[in-house]
Amino acid sequence: MKKHILVVPGDGIGAEVTAVGKQVLEVIAQKFGHEFTYDEALIGHVAIEATGSPLPEETLTKMKSADAVLFGAVGHPKYDNDPSAKVRPEQGLLQMRKELGLYANLRPIKLFDELLEASSIKPEILRGADILFFRELTGDVYFGKRERLEEGNTAYDTMIYSKYEVERIVRKAFEAARTRSKRLCSVDKANVLESSRLWREVVQAIAPEYPDVTVEHQFIDAAAMLLIKDPKRFDVVVTGNLFGDILTDEASQIAGSMGMLASASVGDSTGVYEPIHGSAHDITGKGVANPLASVLSVALLLEISFGLKAEAEAVISAVDAVLKGGYRTRDIADADTPADKVLGTNQMGEQVLAQLA
Amino acid sequence: MKKHILVVPGDGIGAEVTAVGKQVLEVIAQKFGHEFTYDEALIGHVAIEATGSPLPEETLTKMKSADAVLFGAVGHPKYDNDPSAKVRPEQGLLQMRKELGLYANLRPIKLFDELLEASSIKPEILRGADILFFRELTGDVYFGKRERLEEGNTAYDTMIYSKYEVERIVRKAFEAARTRSKRLCSVDKANVLESSRLWREVVQAIAPEYPDVTVEHQFIDAAAMLLIKDPKRFDVVVTGNLFGDILTDEASQIAGSMGMLASASVGDSTGVYEPIHGSAHDITGKGVANPLASVLSVALLLEISFGLKAEAEAVISAVDAVLKGGYRTRDIADADTPADKVLGTNQMGEQVLAQLA
Ligand SMILES: CC(C)[C@H](C(=O)O)[C@@H](O)C(=O)O
Ligand SMILES: CC(C)[C@H](C(=O)O)[C@@H](O)C(=O)O
Repeated sequence: MKKHILVVPGDGIGAEVTAVGKQVLEVIAQKFGHEFTYDEALIGHVAIEATGSPLPEETLTKMKSADAVLFGAVGHPKYDNDPSAKVRPEQGLLQMRKELGLYANLRPIKLFDELLEASSIKPEILRGADILFFRELTGDVYFGKRERLEEGNTAYDTMIYSKYEVERIVRKAFEAARTRSKRLCSVDKANVLESSRLWREVVQAIAPEYPDVTVEHQFIDAAAMLLIKDPKRFDVVVTGNLFGDILTDEASQIAGSMGMLASASVGDSTGVYEPIHGSAHDITGKGVANPLASVLSVALLLEISFGLKAEAEAVISAVDAVLKGGYRTRDIADADTPADKVLGTNQMGEQVLAQLA
Repeated sequence: MKKHILVVPGDGIGAEVTAVGKQVLEVIAQKFGHEFTYDEALIGHVAIEATGSPLPEETLTKMKSADAVLFGAVGHPKYDNDPSAKVRPEQGLLQMRKELGLYANLRPIKLFDELLEASSIKPEILRGADILFFRELTGDVYFGKRERLEEGNTAYDTMIYSKYEVERIVRKAFEAARTRSKRLCSVDKANVLESSRLWREVVQAIAPEYPDVTVEHQFIDAAAMLLIKDPKRFDVVVTGNLFGDILTDEASQIAGSMGMLASASVGDSTGVYEPIHGSAHDITGKGVANPLASVLSVALLLEISFGLKAEAEAVISAVDAVLKGGYRTRDIADADTPADKVLGTNQMGEQVLAQLA
C-alpha cells in the first residue's frame, strides 16, 4: 500500500513522542511491504515563532493532501499565564479541527493488564474496563462566539450546537456500540443547558433506528463521578466537545496514565492521530516522556485511515509485549519496577521497535 | 441562641434525609440550650405539582426571613426525559441561588478514616486528602442567556462572567486558604475560553494581596485527571459554576460516597445547606438513602450561619463515632460489613442521635 503521512510534532514533548511514532510506521512499512512517504509541518507555539501563525497555510495544505496526520501536541506555558495574548498555540489546533472537519474524536480507554497496578484506582474496579469515547470536536463552546464586553470587565463564550452536528457524531457512536457490547451512554447537562436538551432530543430521535443498542443518559456531573466509581458500567460514551475534553482526561486514570492514551480525530477529510496528553513543558527535552500514546496513535492511524487491521494489531501486541517484559517509562513505573527497567523515551521506542522487528 | 430554620426537603430522597437532619438540629438545641424554631416550604417537582411553580413566592419569602435553610434535593426523571418541558424542578434551585445571592458554594471533601476502604480509589492515594472547594454558584453558563434558533434546530447557552463575580468568590477562597495549608488552585479553561481568561486575570490580580498563599492554575481537563491521580496535591480549589459542579461530584469518590458530602451555599442573604447528592429517585421511598450528608450539612449550618463551632464539632464527632461503631448505609457498606450493621435511613439517623444524646 502506498500512503503519504504528514508528521506534525507541534510543541513540547510532541517532537520526542512523534519521532518514536514515525519509527514505528517505518518498521511497519518495511515488515508488511508498504510504501509510506513522510513530510513534516509546524503547528502551535513553534509555528507562531517561525511564521507568526499557529496554523500556517502551508501546514493546512499539506494536511489536506496527506493520507493521514500523525500529530504531537500544542501549547506553551507562556500563553497560559498571559490571558491577554491574542495569538495562541491552541488556536492552531482548533482551526485544524475545524478546517479538516474533524468532528469525531475517538478515544479508546483500555487498560493493558500489566498496568493494572499503575492506576490510583483499585485493580478490582478497573479489571475489564473498556470504554470508547466519542467526543464531538468541531462545535460547542470551543467554536461559539466569544467576546469581551463592558471595557473588558465581562467575558462570554457561546456553547452552541445544531442538530446536524449532534446527529453525525451520535450516529457514529451508535454504529460503534453495535460492534461492541451494544450499550451507549450519552452525557449532557440537560437539566440546565438548552444545548444539552437539543443534544438529548437528537439522541432520543436516533435511538429507535438502533433498537439493538441500549441507551442511557447521564448528566456530566454524575458521569464524572460514575467513571471513577464503576468504570465498567460504561461501554461507548458519546458527548460534546467540552464534556468530552474533561471526561476523557479523567478517564486516562483508568488506563494507568495519560501517557498511554491515543486518539483519532476523523470526519470529512484527512484523519489526525494524536496522544491525548498535552505538550508537557515540565518534562520537555528531558527524554523521559512516554512515547506509547504516540505509538498507539499509530495503531489507530493504520486501522482507521488505512484499514490495516493486522498492522495495527502488530503495533498493539508489541506494546503489550514490552509491558509484559517489565519495561516502563517513569509515569507508569511503580515502587516495584527495577531501576534498569525504567526507560527514557527513545529506549522505550527501541523496545517497541525490537518487538516489531 | 434563638434561631429560625427553614427546612426545604424538595424532591426524591430530599424528604427522607432532611427529616434526619432536622432531628439532629432538635437534639443539638436541647443539648446546648438553644431555641430553634422550624418551618417547611416547597421547591422543585413537588412545588410544581402543588403550585405550578418550582419556587413559589411563599418559599422565597420564608427563605429570606429564615436564619438558615436546610435543603434536600431537586429533580425528577420525568423532566430529564422530556427535553422540551418548559417548567422544570431545577429552575427552582437556580432561581433560589440567584434570588438569595448565594454566590459561594463551599464543598469540603474530607474522608472519614473508617471509609478509607469504601472508595474505588486506593487507600494510600486517599489517606490524608482534604480539599475545600469553592464553586461559584450564581454565574457562568447556568445563568447566561439561552435560546433556540433556526426553528429549534440550533440551541445555545452563554458562559459568562463579570470581574466582580469572580473577585468575590476568589477572595473567599484566598481567605480560606490562609486558614489552611496556604495553597490555592484555580481551575479554568483559559487556553480556549474567554470567560476563563477573565477568570484567570482576576485570580492573578488578587494574588499579590495574599503573598502567603501559593497559587496554581489548572485547566479543567487536567484538574479532573489530577484529582483522581493525586488528590493530596489539592487543598483549596476555586472554580466556576459548571466546572465546580463536575469536579465536586467527581471528588465525592474521594470521600467514599456522594452520600457523605455536605455543602454550604452562602452570599448576600440566608445560607443554604444541602447534600451534594441529588434527588435519587431510583431509591426514593425505600428508606435506604444515606442521611449523613444531610447530617453533615447541619454541621456546616451550625458553624457557618450560627457560628456554633462546638455544636458543629459534636455533630461531626457523632458521625465519626457511628462509623467507628461499624454502622453503614448501603452506599458505604462493603463486602466486610456484617449484614446487621447495614442500616436504613432512619436507623442510621437513630445511631447519630444516640451518639449525640
Ligand atoms: C489543548 C486543548 C485546546 C485541547 C482541547 O481542549 O481540546 C486538549 O485538551 C485536547 O483535549 O485535545
Ligand atoms: C440539580 C442541578 C441543577 C445542580 C447543579 O448542577 O448545580 C446539582 O447538580 C448541584 O450540584 O447542586
